[in-house]
Amino acid sequence: MPTLRIALAQDNPIVGDLDHNADLIRRAASAATVAGAHLLATGEQSLTGYPVEDLALRHSFVEASRDRLVRLAEEIAADGNGSLPVAVGYLDADGPVGSTTGHGIRNALALLQDGKVLFRYYKHHLPNYGVFDEDRWFVAGHELHLARIGGVDVAFTVCEDVWGGVPFTVAEEAGAGLVININASPYEQGKHERRLAVVKERAAGVGAPVAYLNTVGGQDDLVFDGGSMIVAADGSIISSARRFASELLVTDVECPAASRAIANHSSSLMSTSLHVLSEEPAAIETRIEPTFAPELGRHEEVWEALRLGLADYVNKNGFPSVLLGLSGGIDSAVTAVLARDAIGADRVHTVANPSQYSSQHSLDDAADLAERCGLHHVVEPIQPIVDAYLAEIAVSGLALENLQARVRGVIWMSLSNQHGHLVLAAGNKSEYAVGYSTLYGDSCGGFAPIKDVLKTLVYELANWRNEKARSLGETEPIPENIIMKPPSAELRPDQLDSDSLPDYAVLDGILVGYVDGDAGREDLVEQGYPADVVERIAGLVDRAEYKRRQSAPGTKITVKSFGRDRRLPITNHFRGK
Amino acid sequence: MPTLRIALAQDNPIVGDLDHNADLIRRAASAATVAGAHLLATGEQSLTGYPVEDLALRHSFVEASRDRLVRLAEEIAADGNGSLPVAVGYLDADGPVGSTTGHGIRNALALLQDGKVLFRYYKHHLPNYGVFDEDRWFVAGHELHLARIGGVDVAFTVCEDVWGGVPFTVAEEAGAGLVININASPYEQGKHERRLAVVKERAAGVGAPVAYLNTVGGQDDLVFDGGSMIVAADGSIISSARRFASELLVTDVECPAASRAIANHSSSLMSTSLHVLSEEPAAIETRIEPTFAPELGRHEEVWEALRLGLADYVNKNGFPSVLLGLSGGIDSAVTAVLARDAIGADRVHTVANPSQYSSQHSLDDAADLAERCGLHHVVEPIQPIVDAYLAEIAVSGLALENLQARVRGVIWMSLSNQHGHLVLAAGNKSEYAVGYSTLYGDSCGGFAPIKDVLKTLVYELANWRNEKARSLGETEPIPENIIMKPPSAELRPDQLDSDSLPDYAVLDGILVGYVDGDAGREDLVEQGYPADVVERIAGLVDRAEYKRRQSAPGTKITVKSFGRDRRLPITNHFRGK
Repeated sequence: MPTLRIALAQDNPIVGDLDHNADLIRRAASAATVAGAHLLATGEQSLTGYPVEDLALRHSFVEASRDRLVRLAEEIAADGNGSLPVAVGYLDADGPVGSTTGHGIRNALALLQDGKVLFRYYKHHLPNYGVFDEDRWFVAGHELHLARIGGVDVAFTVCEDVWGGVPFTVAEEAGAGLVININASPYEQGKHERRLAVVKERAAGVGAPVAYLNTVGGQDDLVFDGGSMIVAADGSIISSARRFASELLVTDVECPAASRAIANHSSSLMSTSLHVLSEEPAAIETRIEPTFAPELGRHEEVWEALRLGLADYVNKNGFPSVLLGLSGGIDSAVTAVLARDAIGADRVHTVANPSQYSSQHSLDDAADLAERCGLHHVVEPIQPIVDAYLAEIAVSGLALENLQARVRGVIWMSLSNQHGHLVLAAGNKSEYAVGYSTLYGDSCGGFAPIKDVLKTLVYELANWRNEKARSLGETEPIPENIIMKPPSAELRPDQLDSDSLPDYAVLDGILVGYVDGDAGREDLVEQGYPADVVERIAGLVDRAEYKRRQSAPGTKITVKSFGRDRRLPITNHFRGK
Repeated sequence: MPTLRIALAQDNPIVGDLDHNADLIRRAASAATVAGAHLLATGEQSLTGYPVEDLALRHSFVEASRDRLVRLAEEIAADGNGSLPVAVGYLDADGPVGSTTGHGIRNALALLQDGKVLFRYYKHHLPNYGVFDEDRWFVAGHELHLARIGGVDVAFTVCEDVWGGVPFTVAEEAGAGLVININASPYEQGKHERRLAVVKERAAGVGAPVAYLNTVGGQDDLVFDGGSMIVAADGSIISSARRFASELLVTDVECPAASRAIANHSSSLMSTSLHVLSEEPAAIETRIEPTFAPELGRHEEVWEALRLGLADYVNKNGFPSVLLGLSGGIDSAVTAVLARDAIGADRVHTVANPSQYSSQHSLDDAADLAERCGLHHVVEPIQPIVDAYLAEIAVSGLALENLQARVRGVIWMSLSNQHGHLVLAAGNKSEYAVGYSTLYGDSCGGFAPIKDVLKTLVYELANWRNEKARSLGETEPIPENIIMKPPSAELRPDQLDSDSLPDYAVLDGILVGYVDGDAGREDLVEQGYPADVVERIAGLVDRAEYKRRQSAPGTKITVKSFGRDRRLPITNHFRGK
């Protein structure tokens, strides 16, 4: 069998920043050429970033993407890498675009060589569920392209094509010896395992290796987790790239030789086109050893997703630093440590805002954590400000609890406006789900790192992060006292979360069924949860929709996180016409 | 030609409140029976409300919709109206639904008679643009149903079917003598005229009358504007219902008699089924005179949309009252008058929050408006509270401007929490578009009535509303001074909007092209706008995305209002399993 040296560029593009993304691709082409690769693939929409959302409906952006692709082909050739075939994901349309023409916008892959665009493939399966809205933005393609490279017929596909499967069936009919599948596949817990299973199934179906390339990096509430891999027809993993980090994965892959005549033919499902680049098997002087990425444990995987999502939100939006309120509780503690791991201690500012109901141990615990982590920490009491409000308006009960939270929020936002910090909201998924947060109070901020993390998982992450520090001989970042004490909002005397909510194990169990799943109230009672608790929690979830909608984006780690509130990507660097 | 007496129930259902909506349909059936109607049609998803959003993905909600439909058929018969055929819009699926089954969810129409469901039609064209996400929720149907009623073959279609047109082509091939089209069509400026044009085109194509029924009422940021109508094959309007109000439109309509044999046949586009209810032309003792709704001027139409959207948001969410800050400026003035028109003066509370930069004329103008309109008005100075913050933290410049706005926001939210008012945000589309509002300050609140109204239109509405009062011999609600003075945020000495923004006529012109349209920066310069102004405004719009995303819902009156931030409908009364 011929051997192809395949380079997969697992890169981190920025939505809308065409020049930055083109530079990433040029650098990958140079590195792949140095490595002696016969083919370089880059991620889904590697030139435009993903998801482009409503930018897809701007004719100026579609035109900019197409123009930039042509220039990129020329630049790669000018760099001396023209003979390397390079697969690039980008945004295209099946004709001229403009204010007056209809849509025919395509999620496209182009193969570049010798300064030219050899062909343009349009994604066949368009996902339109969960975070995906591709029926809204794109039109599906129906022509599969194969390139004969070193005597191997390589088929090119995009993301959902591997789940839907039609292009793989057609690739098998066309005698493909390798299928490239470029992705921008967002992270969810357990998804990497599902990907591996489907790639194995497709490789077996085609009877040839499948090269699965994923993007890496955070984009608003999505995080692409990398983990690119090449899987053989027998299901064995030939090589794999790291999760949550950029990497150029170069692998020598034995592929079935091209057997069919040079002629385009039509399947009943999609038409196919064959482009011959080189008939002779490529010469390889020294085989390179395949690399395999370490597998991550469940908690490390989640932590890395949250860390990368936060880091990229801060950096892609150009914030110099972050600020968050440090209450002495578990949520703000985990958020602060995540921030330090993401962008470094010197860019993390914390503030404690004690009221008359704050305990001394909370203040001490907050200061202890800030010191262990080397964060900039200040204390700003809120009681005099609360009293100034109370001199003006009569508030009591829940309204007074909310007032305290909002005074803190105003202080954080004022410091943000004055100094340029991004405010982080430290709320977790359990409390957002039932509405146990104050709108414009603790929920305010530009990013909510753990908004998709259930409270029970917050505790697990805290313990895992401390354990990791111990195993490295480092100081545990989170004081044990913060992990051990019972959770409280400290907005009235002796308040405990357990006064008004069931045990978090019970609450989270109900939320997994009712929010993440499709369980109705009766289903949950059948599962053994008390009917009155189910009724109350489901009612709270239904009523909390408005607050959830107004909360900040935060890294998504489950199938149904809250919010699909995009219209334009926030992290959007398009500066075109 | 036979004559059918058609009743169209232009009603205002509530999303998720199946019992309430079923009662509306029962009452319409009773009224239609009394009126001697031969057929009653109700709106798209009249049983479930529209749009149901993610409720469509809850098996318990789909099951509740199906069960309620069957009970509704029995109830209509028990009410003594069983012989009346009633078309009902609801949510269905093409098989059992449950946690483990795939989707086959349908946007459906059922024809009920004699306590039974005669047939179930599944909407053919599913819109998936703008506010519509129907490819996400539903699967398209491919079978058209006709009912022979009084010797006329009546075809039944749903909403987008009239725009896409395939079911109308099939209805023509099947010899339909009348086509019913039930809608939940949201308002946009100019849309009613486009509807009339397409209904005329379809009626001419089928060669028979088309009965276009629209829903009425506000649902979060959508407002359904009614305006149901029956249009003859020659394009003449046979009858029409009011805009923005419920109505049972009963009309005697001459329809071509059924001519084809009783047999189901297949078109190449959709299959068809014919259900025979009655062959003999219906007897009509006394023809009733058709009714025609008055046409609305442009400003009255927009005002009514905003008024109804606000009224239904307040009432469907169960708020006793609203509260808003009254600055003495034009935006809060128009918002306050809208609120009074929507829910009555006694439910409207206003508060003036002067700072050291507030002018006396602003305070006077606010008090004058409150008095003219009979609103509950109080004055709460903010300077002592601002000073309390400044004693704690050092803020200046823009941060200090934002601080003042946020202190006001906290006061409004505290009063809301204490007394149960819904806070209204008074921002307009021009300022939200460029980010000229304070996050968690003036932008806070549960509903933003004029968030989709450009500043120039805010002025036009103010003048129109005063003119309307004059024409009725009433006091002008808005003091002339509020309309005449130059706009200012009054957050620093002698501040004017024109210090930092171009004239609103120029700003709004750019926004119409750049936000509502697909104009790029170059297109706008070609249209004659100065390049530096275009560059600055487009940059502000791109950067303001985050704030827009966190702002309250507000009635949509243009093609592209901000925000498509729904996951579950906020106004959601589903209390099922």
